[in-house]
Formats: sequence, C-alpha cells, structure tokens
Amino acid sequence: MLDRAQVLDAGDPLAVYRERFDLPEGMIYLDGNSLGCLPKATAGRLEEVLREEWGRDLIRSWNTAGWIDLPAKVGGKIAPLIGAQPHEVIVADSVSVNLFKLISAALALQSKSGRPGRKVVLSEPGNFPTDIYMIQGLESQGLATRRLAAREQLLAALDEDVALLLLTHAHYKTGELFDMVELTRAAHAAGALVLWDLSHSGGALPVDLNGCEADFAVGCGYKYLNGGPGAPAYAFVAERHLEAAQQPLSGWMGHAAPFAFSDDYTPAPGIERLLCGTPGILGLSALEVGVDLIAEIGVENLYAKSQKLSEFFRQCLAERGLDLELVSPTDPAQRGSQLSFRHEEAYAICQALIARGVIGDFRDPDILRFGFAPAYLRFADMAEAARHLAEVIESGEYRDAAFQERAAVT
Amino acid sequence: MLDRAQVLDAGDPLAVYRERFDLPEGMIYLDGNSLGCLPKATAGRLEEVLREEWGRDLIRSWNTAGWIDLPAKVGGKIAPLIGAQPHEVIVADSVSVNLFKLISAALALQSKSGRPGRKVVLSEPGNFPTDIYMIQGLESQGLATRRLAAREQLLAALDEDVALLLLTHAHYKTGELFDMVELTRAAHAAGALVLWDLSHSGGALPVDLNGCEADFAVGCGYKYLNGGPGAPAYAFVAERHLEAAQQPLSGWMGHAAPFAFSDDYTPAPGIERLLCGTPGILGLSALEVGVDLIAEIGVENLYAKSQKLSEFFRQCLAERGLDLELVSPTDPAQRGSQLSFRHEEAYAICQALIARGVIGDFRDPDILRFGFAPAYLRFADMAEAARHLAEVIESGEYRDAAFQERAAVT
Repeated sequence: MLDRAQVLDAGDPLAVYRERFDLPEGMIYLDGNSLGCLPKATAGRLEEVLREEWGRDLIRSWNTAGWIDLPAKVGGKIAPLIGAQPHEVIVADSVSVNLFKLISAALALQSKSGRPGRKVVLSEPGNFPTDIYMIQGLESQGLATRRLAAREQLLAALDEDVALLLLTHAHYKTGELFDMVELTRAAHAAGALVLWDLSHSGGALPVDLNGCEADFAVGCGYKYLNGGPGAPAYAFVAERHLEAAQQPLSGWMGHAAPFAFSDDYTPAPGIERLLCGTPGILGLSALEVGVDLIAEIGVENLYAKSQKLSEFFRQCLAERGLDLELVSPTDPAQRGSQLSFRHEEAYAICQALIARGVIGDFRDPDILRFGFAPAYLRFADMAEAARHLAEVIESGEYRDAAFQERAAVT
Repeated sequence: MLDRAQVLDAGDPLAVYRERFDLPEGMIYLDGNSLGCLPKATAGRLEEVLREEWGRDLIRSWNTAGWIDLPAKVGGKIAPLIGAQPHEVIVADSVSVNLFKLISAALALQSKSGRPGRKVVLSEPGNFPTDIYMIQGLESQGLATRRLAAREQLLAALDEDVALLLLTHAHYKTGELFDMVELTRAAHAAGALVLWDLSHSGGALPVDLNGCEADFAVGCGYKYLNGGPGAPAYAFVAERHLEAAQQPLSGWMGHAAPFAFSDDYTPAPGIERLLCGTPGILGLSALEVGVDLIAEIGVENLYAKSQKLSEFFRQCLAERGLDLELVSPTDPAQRGSQLSFRHEEAYAICQALIARGVIGDFRDPDILRFGFAPAYLRFADMAEAARHLAEVIESGEYRDAAFQERAAVT
C-alpha cells in the first residue's frame, strides 16, 4: 500500500504545498478539521505585525497598516471561497457570536416583512452544539423558539412559524453534507430565511452561497482556513439583505462613523454593520495568511484531493481487513473532508493512535473522526494511518488502562 | 525644565521598567490610553505559541499548553488589579460583547428578583459610545430602555425603573473619575445594579470592585494592560451573582461540559459561563504578557507616577506661558492617567504634534488628549512634549494645510 501511496503522491499536483506548512516531525495529523496546521508564512507576518505595526507605528497603524479595514479585507478574500461577493463577507468575533447576530437579524427581517409571529428557528438535533445553544440564547430572551427536527423531517418541519432554518453544511461528526440548493429553496418556499454554518466546509470544499441564494452564513477561521487557535470567524449577509439587516450587538466598530463618537447608533451602510468591538489584529493577521494560502491552492483542487485521500484511506483499511462502521456517507461527494467511524471503544482507540503519533479525534460518545486537510497530507500518510489503526485494533493495545482513562477535554 | 526632568527621572523607582518595552526611536508616545506599547517579552511568547504550541503540538495544546484554561487564568491575573477575586474575572471577546452579556445578565437578575418592570439602563451622555450603543442593542430587542442623564443628574435619575447603572470609571475624553463607592451605594439604595466600565482605569490606577460592592464590570486589554491591538477584554461578575447570572450569548465554551456536545445548554457553574465561542489564543497569550508586566510594576506605583507625570506636564506648559483650557479635573486624584485640553484647532494641533513625533490623540470635536502610561514614560518626555506643544501653538504651524485635512479615522 505504501508503494501505491508513493505513486499517488508523486502524481499529486498539490504535493508542493506541504512545504508551505510548519509541520511537526513524525506526526500524521488527521485533525485539520479541528485546528488547521501552521503556515510557514504566519510567523514572519506576525513578527512584522508585532515589531513594525504595533511596536514601531503604534496607534497610527489603524490607518497606515490598514488595521481598520482588515475585517472587510480578509472577509473579501474569504468571499470567493464560499461563493460570495467581497462586500458580503466580514471577519469578526467568533462563530457563536456571529450566529447570535445573524439569527437576530433574520428574526428582525421577518418582523419587518410583516411576519412578527414567525419566531421558530429550525435546526437538527446533533448539530454542532454552539449553533443550537445560540438559538437557546435568543430563546432565553423570549425572542426565538427553538425547534429541532431530524434531517429527514426537516422539510416537513418548515411550517408557517419558521423564521429561520439554521443548518451546518458539513456535519461536524459525520461529515454528511446538506444539499444547500434544495434546503434553501424549500425554506424560502415556506417563507423562512436560511443561515448556513460553513465551519466544516468553508476552505475545504466549493460552497456557492449566492448560487443557492442563501441569506446568511457563518464560518470558522481555525479549521480549514489555518488561521490559528481560536482565529476570528466570518459572517456573510446576502447583498439584498445588507441594508435591512440589523443586529443587536451594535458596538462602535459597526457604526457608520465610529470616530464621530456620537451618542446614537447608526449602523454602517454595508457589511461593516456586523462588527461589534475593536477587532483583534493579531488573530486577523494570522488568519489572513491562512486564507491567502488556501485561496492560492484553490478549494476545488483541495476538495478533489481530499476525496481521493479519504477513498484511499478506506481502501487501505479494507485491504487490511478492517471493517469499521462508517458513519460518514460512502459517496465522497456526499461528505466533507472527513471520515468518521463508530466504535464502542472510540475514545481509547483515539488515545492509542495519538500515542503512535496519529492525531485524529474522538467525539462523544463513540465516534472516531479523521479529517483530511489536503493542503498538507500525503497519500503515504493515509497508508500509514490505516496501518496504525489496524494494528491498534488488532493488537487490542487500546485496552491499556492509560488509553481508557478519559481526559477532561478534546 | 529638561534639567529638572532629568533629576526626577533619576529618582524615579519605575524608570527601570522602560527597558521592558520595545519603544520606537525618537517618539514621545502619549497614547498608551488608546493602544499600549509592546512589551519586549511579547514577541518571544508569541513565537513560542506559534512554533511550539500551535505548530508542533497542535490540537493537543488545548490540554497540554492549557489553552482551555487561559481565559480564566489571565482573568485571575487581572483580578487583583481591579479589586476582584480571581474566580470573578474572565477574559473573553471584546468590551462591547461583554457589555451586552452583562447588561443582559443584570436585566435577567432584576426580573428574577421580582422586578421585571425595571428595564431602564442608566448612563451618561458622552460616555464611550460603545457603552451607549450596547444599551441600544438591547433596546432594539425590546428588552431595555436607555436613559442618559448628565453626571450631576445621575443620582436624581436613579428611580424605581432603573435596572442597571452603567458608567465608565475614568471618562475616555476627560479622564474624570466617578466615585465608585458613592455611585454604587446610591444605585443599590435605589434597587439598581451597577456595571462599571474600567477600560480607562484597569491597570492604570487602583480599582476596588469588591470594596465598593460592584455587581459587574468590563475592561479593555489593549490600553493600559498592553495586550496589543484589539486584545481580548475582561469581564467581572461579583461572586454573589455568579450562580444566578445568565447571559444570552450562550456559546459552547460557556457550557458546563463543552465536550459532552449535548443538545441543551447548561451554563458553567462559575465565571466560565461568560465565555461564548472559542477563545483567540494569540490575543490571549499576548495579553497575558502585558498583564504580568503591569502586575509586577503594581497599579499603586503606576498611578502615583502618572499623577506626577501629568502634574509635571502641566507645570511645563505653565512655565512656557501656555494657557490651554483643561477639561480634565485639576486635582490629579480626580482623574485617570490622562490630561485633555479643549482647543478649536485640536485636530490640526494633534497632527502637527504627530509630525514632530509626539503622539497624542484627538477626540471629536475639539479635544486634545494626552495619556500618561507611566510604565514607559519619562519626566523628560513631559518636558519635551510640552515644548513641542508650545512651539506648535506659538508658531501657528498647525495652520499648515496638511495638518488641517481630516483623515478618516482615529
């Protein structure tokens, strides 16, 4: 298998990009869907931000280094990766905070459109928790009603009470993709708006927000965009909603004229109205490096390779006679850049793999998740990871007490 | 004056700390109240976070490098600077976002205490805009009513409709201090809660949140704490409110068990319930360096020196016969670490000073503001800055067209 992998690597047009990352020695990292790797250019860029922009030019850098425009600038660079226009995307805060803004904006739009009775925000059980929790946040304010319907019941649950359909494009546990065109159309037909969470798809696979006429979207900077731990997130508002979209986190950076220091809030005319407080320049600058690199490689290329990587990984497992229960779709076109397997001992297996230098992750209660970030992974890594996984399971080494003991986090 | 300044510098016990900052050559920086200077240790710490924690250990650093505990850890280090207990303070998001959380928490507490009718959030006109705008955000949701009363009318405005008094301890324009003890007591006597914005006092002067029985507070990481541009902010909840304080930005990091991935939100038992999304580790790590340094120097020492600096600056101006209208209190004990002057041509004067390497700032419409961050400023800087200011005004050089033209920001 390793031979075959080496042939595939030799013919891989993206192989050259591995050099652009600072990768740890002797590790096979299958967790780029949780925290993307460090681009080599990031350290130099941050050094420049620290020593020159902050250290030397200080406050003037808000103008001279363009800090004040950085949220819109980096947003504009993310836009083509997700099928948006540059002025429809901005980088700000976290995914969670942006969810709150956009759920609020959707409810307000429904109310303005003469449908104040629509308060239901529809999602699915088992969606990434923060998506569901942010609906609950607005529910605690008396402004929204959470409704969760299983995937196959979603269309039926789209009734006249639904203000907003909030779904994650690629499921964080299984990688299963929603059909954005179909769901968006169905929601609109039912009078609902749609908010897509692109955390597990933006930068990993082609997304076409405007092609499917999405209303809103959010996404994560620290997974496939390689922006660093807790990188700022992005938010999308379709051009047709920009003027009317109002959100309650109306901080000074979202004001039409922040430095007029007026006592009254007037939202900025464009996507900047989604800004709230002062943007974190270190995080934004690191994110920009990751976004530039992913844009250079191209999401179409990345997705094509990730499908080949994950299929090859499955072949390697099959050839080793390992028959794990796949919870991701078998058709690679139906899933994001990941494969997830169900195993009773998923936690301990994950720990035993980590001890061998293969980093995947565990998702409660019984999911082993492997992400295939194709910008820095090789087919040889697939062959080796499959070998380790087979050996861990066949040897039973995961039954070692040290692997059984649960740590507090991740 | 320069002679006298040098004597003062020679006798200054804090003079040694100037070496701990990476300061630009030939600049007198009087804007540490807008963006604090770069500590020398920050670049090394960030290099370590990048190369070792992110680059080498990747996702495991949430445990092994303690990323997951960083918001509470850095909050705990800020706590003694503001008269709080370590478990009452957490670093998260921006000042604006934290204002939204805590105004919401206060309204919810009032409601739980059987006073749902109290919806007024009282502040003063001319408070820092974002404080006022975040009240408006909740007003747009129908959950709060904004009331602004001038400083001398605040006590009279504290009636039975007031849920929360929201004030900034040191005024961003004038530096004037509120008497936290008096205002907090009056608010409580009227059945209102109090939220203090410490953006212009935390790390600059001694604050005693628990001594004055404050309920809530927020503060800024990028001014006197030297955390870098857009550094994350901090939030305080008094211990007695921790269990009952609920806020609607209920993201996954504020959950009692984030990695259980439950569909239902249960707030963390302690101050962690104020967390929302994934914390930005680059910003937090840089902030920690700044906080450590300020804690080492000591806020009492810093405030004592800043009072001497600002008084010396005023003496220098007086000796040069410059009689500018001071809008800050003349008694240094009544103001934060700044002096602000009113001048019709404040904008152009500020620009002319910048051209001479003296960085103060302008606040609309006619305020010249000079901040005295005593960790890195010398008495000699005061003498020189006063000389430049006098020369700029006496020469009329600020009337040069280039200085008159307004830039878009700061």
